[in-house]
Amino acid sequence: MIGKHIEALLMENQENFLIPADNVATVLYNHPLEHALLVLSKVGYAKIPVLDSEDHLVGLISLANIIDKMMGLTGFDIGILEGLTVADVMEVNVPSITYKEELEDMLHLLVNNSFLPVVDEEKVFHGIVTRKEILKSVNHLVHELEKRYEMTPKEKPIKEKLIS
Amino acid sequence: MIGKHIEALLMENQENFLIPADNVATVLYNHPLEHALLVLSKVGYAKIPVLDSEDHLVGLISLANIIDKMMGLTGFDIGILEGLTVADVMEVNVPSITYKEELEDMLHLLVNNSFLPVVDEEKVFHGIVTRKEILKSVNHLVHELEKRYEMTPKEKPIKEKLIS
Repeated sequence: MIGKHIEALLMENQENFLIPADNVATVLYNHPLEHALLVLSKVGYAKIPVLDSEDHLVGLISLANIIDKMMGLTGFDIGILEGLTVADVMEVNVPSITYKEELEDMLHLLVNNSFLPVVDEEKVFHGIVTRKEILKSVNHLVHELEKRYEMTPKEKPIKEKLIS
Repeated sequence: MIGKHIEALLMENQENFLIPADNVATVLYNHPLEHALLVLSKVGYAKIPVLDSEDHLVGLISLANIIDKMMGLTGFDIGILEGLTVADVMEVNVPSITYKEELEDMLHLLVNNSFLPVVDEEKVFHGIVTRKEILKSVNHLVHELEKRYEMTPKEKPIKEKLIS
């Protein structure tokens, strides 16, 4: 369990955690792969959400997913992508969170995912939470906590000597 | 400044911060671009360090850097890469840190960089520090801090009510 004082401090930046859907590059599952390649090469994100025409999250697609597919018998061949769509290479069953997600679960999921799609109960895509935004809150936390609280060891912090 | 109790807790995981050079995929600046494309599509990292033959860090290269270069007048063309090397598209003047880096500076740099190359004073590449590894330490911190310390507000934490 996360301590309440710490959670409070981390959550002061809560409104900035979510990057809203309008500010996130996405592709549709039935888009041509070449279109996804173009979007991904321009946006500066290695991986982006894949939606259906009603904004439901259906997967994630990365540059690596597409480049992998381009690997033919004699090297890379862009022609292999012809006729293929995003659905042919996207990752499915990807982790997502809801607005109600506990901070604790979010922090754990972000260890193995550089971002998490945020969806509602109908799986409609609302945005993403990223390691980057969380790190901003962590910076806030580590600078503020001891300014605001007097910290008294409950027992001898034996491991502390390791860094002195 | 980061509080000393917090820094101590974050640093308990210090030995795991660094992913040593041996475990990091890299390319040489004079490697053919197609080789870098192959490495990047396989390693699961969107961006990797570029070294010279004496292990000095000279830049970073991403899948997006290469795909961008493949964009011709009539669409993507893998043939454009022929004869080009990593040096032709890599990013140079990238941020790096040394072993002596302050935790505070490292945390700030990681807001805008998903990883930081670690180099010695001769710019020899020793490994990387990643947001992912730092987040593991943050998870440790937020779970342990209030188990180990009694926290007494120095003044009324007025913002705390915002999350209750």
